[in-house]
Amino acid sequence: MLITHASQLLTLAGGPQRGADLGRLGIIPDGAVLIRGEVIERVGTSEELERAYPDEPRLDAGGRAVLPGFVDPHTHLIWAGDRAAEFEMRLAGATYMEIMAAGGGILSTVRATRSAGLEELKAQSRRRMDAMLRHGTTTAEAKTGYGLDTPSELAQLQALLELDAEHPLDLVPTFLGAHAVAPEFDGDPEGYTRLLCEEMLPAARRWWDEHAPGRPLPFVDVFCETGAFSLEQSRAILERARELGFPLKIHADEFDNLGGASLAAELGAASADHLVKTSPGDIRRLAASETVAVALPCTPFGLAQPEYTPAAQILAAGGLLAVASDINPGTAWCESMQFVIALACRYLKLTPAQAIAAATINAAAAVGRADRVGSLEPGKQADLLILSEPDYRHLGYRFGTNLVAQVIKAGQVIDFSSH
Amino acid sequence: MLITHASQLLTLAGGPQRGADLGRLGIIPDGAVLIRGEVIERVGTSEELERAYPDEPRLDAGGRAVLPGFVDPHTHLIWAGDRAAEFEMRLAGATYMEIMAAGGGILSTVRATRSAGLEELKAQSRRRMDAMLRHGTTTAEAKTGYGLDTPSELAQLQALLELDAEHPLDLVPTFLGAHAVAPEFDGDPEGYTRLLCEEMLPAARRWWDEHAPGRPLPFVDVFCETGAFSLEQSRAILERARELGFPLKIHADEFDNLGGASLAAELGAASADHLVKTSPGDIRRLAASETVAVALPCTPFGLAQPEYTPAAQILAAGGLLAVASDINPGTAWCESMQFVIALACRYLKLTPAQAIAAATINAAAAVGRADRVGSLEPGKQADLLILSEPDYRHLGYRFGTNLVAQVIKAGQVIDFSSH
Repeated sequence: MLITHASQLLTLAGGPQRGADLGRLGIIPDGAVLIRGEVIERVGTSEELERAYPDEPRLDAGGRAVLPGFVDPHTHLIWAGDRAAEFEMRLAGATYMEIMAAGGGILSTVRATRSAGLEELKAQSRRRMDAMLRHGTTTAEAKTGYGLDTPSELAQLQALLELDAEHPLDLVPTFLGAHAVAPEFDGDPEGYTRLLCEEMLPAARRWWDEHAPGRPLPFVDVFCETGAFSLEQSRAILERARELGFPLKIHADEFDNLGGASLAAELGAASADHLVKTSPGDIRRLAASETVAVALPCTPFGLAQPEYTPAAQILAAGGLLAVASDINPGTAWCESMQFVIALACRYLKLTPAQAIAAATINAAAAVGRADRVGSLEPGKQADLLILSEPDYRHLGYRFGTNLVAQVIKAGQVIDFSSH
Repeated sequence: MLITHASQLLTLAGGPQRGADLGRLGIIPDGAVLIRGEVIERVGTSEELERAYPDEPRLDAGGRAVLPGFVDPHTHLIWAGDRAAEFEMRLAGATYMEIMAAGGGILSTVRATRSAGLEELKAQSRRRMDAMLRHGTTTAEAKTGYGLDTPSELAQLQALLELDAEHPLDLVPTFLGAHAVAPEFDGDPEGYTRLLCEEMLPAARRWWDEHAPGRPLPFVDVFCETGAFSLEQSRAILERARELGFPLKIHADEFDNLGGASLAAELGAASADHLVKTSPGDIRRLAASETVAVALPCTPFGLAQPEYTPAAQILAAGGLLAVASDINPGTAWCESMQFVIALACRYLKLTPAQAIAAATINAAAAVGRADRVGSLEPGKQADLLILSEPDYRHLGYRFGTNLVAQVIKAGQVIDFSSH
């Protein structure tokens, strides 16, 4: 298939974009892309490619912008139920303790998720995947973490593998048994940390080897935060995960700075995520590493908090910056990377070009897939978006609606009547 | 047609909701609505209405929430072109003067709109109407104001009347010749104010009488703001409009407090809009009047400014509060009242229930249509939304996507394959 007449073909060619390099879109005016099967074979101008492949079936982009599918590198995709009532209570002035007493908070989602059957859990998550794909996300990281015991966490890994196989949206799984201290270990985070290190992580490794042999291991992630896991507990969990061969991620500095970002850099984590309270020293250490800084602007937005990731400082230090949705039922139920870009322009002060690079090639780096997705280059998976507009800068400029007109996933035009 | 099995039928019955009364949703659990032609005939429980009308054709809401269509009481719907390049320049650090020198700002939209033919102007605006309808807006105010000379402003009125007739979305027109000082009067706001009072407003009145005889007169609005029209100029324009019989609106206190909100209350305007820099005295005078305070949270959001309308004070004073999109190409290109609700929950600190009332029955009051739309009551126009979720609180809680599954406009289920 030959896609022609992209007013702007945003190739994002040349690999992840560090520091001041962020925002290099590699635009080909009146661009075209030749796709063979699931893969991009050639990229150029419409004139070149129409001449070279006169008999190829055409998809005319009609003078609209074309770019790589978004990669969402931080999602809590898989949960059951919702926390809409809690949201209203919070706005009406309820305190955290009142919400907890009314059955709210993360543990209410753990209860709902543990008790949902696998099919129900998948059905609810699949609706979110449909919405993500419709808004242009073609690859998404997806974390377990609403189980918090071995069987529930493994069931969520199972659900993620099945959803990945059944749905056009590609999932990159992450094991987040360390999302919160399990209710059974209330007041005993050390005990739960031991369970994670001694039982859950080894069980996850065995499970993976049995159920997904040959497939790259999932990431292991930990919520390093006051009220969740201390820096020492986080280190113990991540070091154990590394021993077992897992690649690493970390939730760091969302509300408090415990040193998680520097830990991520030290341990060679693929990414450190949230990064609101990150210090200049942490930023320096991150920027000197291969760890991608993943900003999650939907979370402060969702909570109406004024502080966002210090993106300008991360870029000034030469860091690798990506953005993600953090979709979750507590603080940020948002499937749209377009909205993440709109927030990134306003609250991280990125230009649309920078935000798009952070949502594609750099986001791919944050999930270890920069070799396969995140740009339009020969040999990469043919994941493309045709916008409804000729100018990519409508992304960021406009907000609250969907500017993706068509999604091509692994060479297939998605028919949204079935998603 | 009988709509049945709404998990929650939000009637919003009982008229506009003042002060602490805001948020009275009038929910009927397992609700139903009987529609005859374009009008609601009866509202009740599914059990009642299914028994009373056993042979009526059914539309089963399937256990999802049903509410009145949104009324968007402040839009600059009709313009040509975009200002995406200006948005990117601003984020990259360009000054206002640099943007102006590069051809940006409101006058760039005036140039594009003046030079677009009527059909092109309508085509571009129709795409926005489609998006508004798809996101649940069934009635919208729509302002002229990118013409700023008599023929261009009248051409925009003409376009608004034609779009209203051609499209399911109902438009309530507003004449906003006083949107900015016309380029031909650069440095001479007094001269343009005289032109408005002596030529443009009388011409608008004659034009309306000839082209829309019998139809209620459009609103006349003025941008009372430093750099646009002073309080005295605003008063002159609005008093002249009132003499000519027009109902009134005002843009007040967006960036500076010039006293426009109190002027609106004094002159009996239908609404005063923006209201960011509004003083306690203005709030008191507004609250003692029938003038609806219309908050436009997309505008500070669009500009990434931290200050929003002091909604809590307006409600505490007993005011009538509505919300609107302010859709326009400079500061807030957003078609979705769902996103307005999400912002209202976070930055105006409304509950979802309050935000929904502000976006329906109170918004209808702001455009003088509370007798016809904004609630589900016998005799009202059958404008309804079926959400994708059973709980109305998903509005506000979730953001960046579209939770409206079906739109019923004047008794007709909208087929979005043609919009």
